[in-house]
Amino acid sequence: MPTFSDRIDGLRPSPIRTILSVVDRPGMVSFAGGLPATTMLPDWSGSFAPDLLQYGPSEGEPALRRAVAERLRALGVDAPDDRVIILSGSQQGIDLVAKLLVDPGTVTAVEQPTYLAALQVFRFYGARFTDLADPTASLAYAVPTFANPTGACMSDAARAALADACRDSGTVLFEDDPYRELAYDAVDRAPIVARMHGASWVYQGSFSKTFAPGLRLGFMTASADLFDRLVILKQAVDLHSSRLSQQIVLDAVSDGDWTDRLERLADFYRARRDDFDSLLTRYLGDLADWRRPSGGLFFWLTLRDRIDTRTLLDDAVAAGVAFMPGEEFYADEPELGTMRLNFSHSDSADADRGLAILADLIAERIAARSR
Amino acid sequence: MPTFSDRIDGLRPSPIRTILSVVDRPGMVSFAGGLPATTMLPDWSGSFAPDLLQYGPSEGEPALRRAVAERLRALGVDAPDDRVIILSGSQQGIDLVAKLLVDPGTVTAVEQPTYLAALQVFRFYGARFTDLADPTASLAYAVPTFANPTGACMSDAARAALADACRDSGTVLFEDDPYRELAYDAVDRAPIVARMHGASWVYQGSFSKTFAPGLRLGFMTASADLFDRLVILKQAVDLHSSRLSQQIVLDAVSDGDWTDRLERLADFYRARRDDFDSLLTRYLGDLADWRRPSGGLFFWLTLRDRIDTRTLLDDAVAAGVAFMPGEEFYADEPELGTMRLNFSHSDSADADRGLAILADLIAERIAARSR
Repeated sequence: MPTFSDRIDGLRPSPIRTILSVVDRPGMVSFAGGLPATTMLPDWSGSFAPDLLQYGPSEGEPALRRAVAERLRALGVDAPDDRVIILSGSQQGIDLVAKLLVDPGTVTAVEQPTYLAALQVFRFYGARFTDLADPTASLAYAVPTFANPTGACMSDAARAALADACRDSGTVLFEDDPYRELAYDAVDRAPIVARMHGASWVYQGSFSKTFAPGLRLGFMTASADLFDRLVILKQAVDLHSSRLSQQIVLDAVSDGDWTDRLERLADFYRARRDDFDSLLTRYLGDLADWRRPSGGLFFWLTLRDRIDTRTLLDDAVAAGVAFMPGEEFYADEPELGTMRLNFSHSDSADADRGLAILADLIAERIAARSR
Repeated sequence: MPTFSDRIDGLRPSPIRTILSVVDRPGMVSFAGGLPATTMLPDWSGSFAPDLLQYGPSEGEPALRRAVAERLRALGVDAPDDRVIILSGSQQGIDLVAKLLVDPGTVTAVEQPTYLAALQVFRFYGARFTDLADPTASLAYAVPTFANPTGACMSDAARAALADACRDSGTVLFEDDPYRELAYDAVDRAPIVARMHGASWVYQGSFSKTFAPGLRLGFMTASADLFDRLVILKQAVDLHSSRLSQQIVLDAVSDGDWTDRLERLADFYRARRDDFDSLLTRYLGDLADWRRPSGGLFFWLTLRDRIDTRTLLDDAVAAGVAFMPGEEFYADEPELGTMRLNFSHSDSADADRGLAILADLIAERIAARSR
């Protein structure tokens, strides 16, 4: 059994939840919920089912959960239809997992560097960070496929090793996989949790990259020993995710065009990546090192002269270009002279202009240091 | 200063947030975020601004925040435009406030009975419950206007007393006000926090009752000493609320019909309340006592023979009627023989049928006890 946070001791299924699960039965009169009269809801007939305006199930819309589960099973993940939660964005999943597992002092293994908003949430609940290889960790958080911020993709051997290590040490593996569909080269990217039958794990993905961030939708599945508690926690934070957003995403993934859409996305971003790579070589080839990422949204740069890039940011913004200092992505002591550059959002002209400005600033700063 | 939870010590504004606040400047090239290419977002031209599909501000859409702030100021609340957060439903606000203020053992004052999903969240973070009048409380949670579950509405004198008591004892008042617009009689309902200038307070409301629950939108404002931290906490749980939901609600509240809509709602539910009251008298007049609520969505019944209504629920559901046992709404020892009945959702025929079934069950149970 995983070690739950102390908070979980008092967690009980809500009686509301239990009751709401029966009120949809035909012929049932419900005085239980606090539901508006359906006739007084806005009239959206024609656009959307009026039902979508009412309260819905905490786990999410059944048809969307089914669609997600089918895709996950095709990847080898043990995800029955009823073991999927629709999230209000995958950021929410990090909060739920931290609530479930992290107490002050809980040893939490992370990649270094890693997604900074995950570090913030785990730290908020009191996590003590360690490396992914640490067998004393209760929880291991990883973005194995096109990591944020490095863009790195774990090899098949590394995936197998992490799965085995977590299983052997009883560490819950939390695999965060928002970039999976943004793959530009042929690489290993089978979900690690697909190798973890019988162990404790959580896996989540996002519709922000494949569809639209503004709708705030992601999804989560987990091993059976964790799933029910995650649903109760989900209910406690927002009852359920926007049903309208869910219907729109369901329509999109059910559309025959969805697979083509993912291919078009990958083609488009692959071209942006290659263009950005050329521009980096032109402007920063003498100043920094990087590996061209095989997927995802970011280049990770290491400056040859290790200036703290946090001190560059104000000047860069004043000059009209924003970036993420790499130092922010470390749990403990940051590696100086690193930066994360997003290549998906800027077109070629903007990327050219922005990188030229950035290269000038870095060169100036280095020159100033050596004077 | 209020006593923040231990978790808050490590809370820092996210560098992402700081950077995202400048990337919208004209001419700025941003390599900072992880934004999709706008050209690869779904094409919604005609229906919605494509902008809505991108990531948005954690506080919410500025125009919706402004619309909410104007309404709150008209009620006397000290809510500048920039001190409003749009929530993913007001359930989320309860989680945010608990994160901000509740540690294991934190003395938390509540009405008895009160909203059970608030009790669950506060309990989850370790709250120790006490009565609203307790001056040792760090936090007081109240639903003064058409309370859930009782439907009670605090008098002006009670509101003044609670405001004074919280101010005197340095207790943060958290006023939860989802039912304000569903007022059927002329009663005092000025927000208590409007009397609390200079003290620490949080106020929240919901669009679930006035518009549609399925969109999951609410709003929060707070005294200046609490507000910034609440925004950071909001960002950590879901980055921001669905922008599509926000736009739809903004369109609705900006519509000239909004005020009429609220009046139609109140008229409709007033008629349902009166009808339900008559049916209650017919079927349960000899079995229970209640006060006709001046607003909100619920009747609160006290059975003359105090059977534990939790033990009635299975039989009731089997007979085709669901209700909420009142016992679930107490922080500590429940008062037996209480029940919450929602009157907004069922039409007259359903209400008639459901109450007839319920009355029979209660009468049977009482007869069985006295045999």
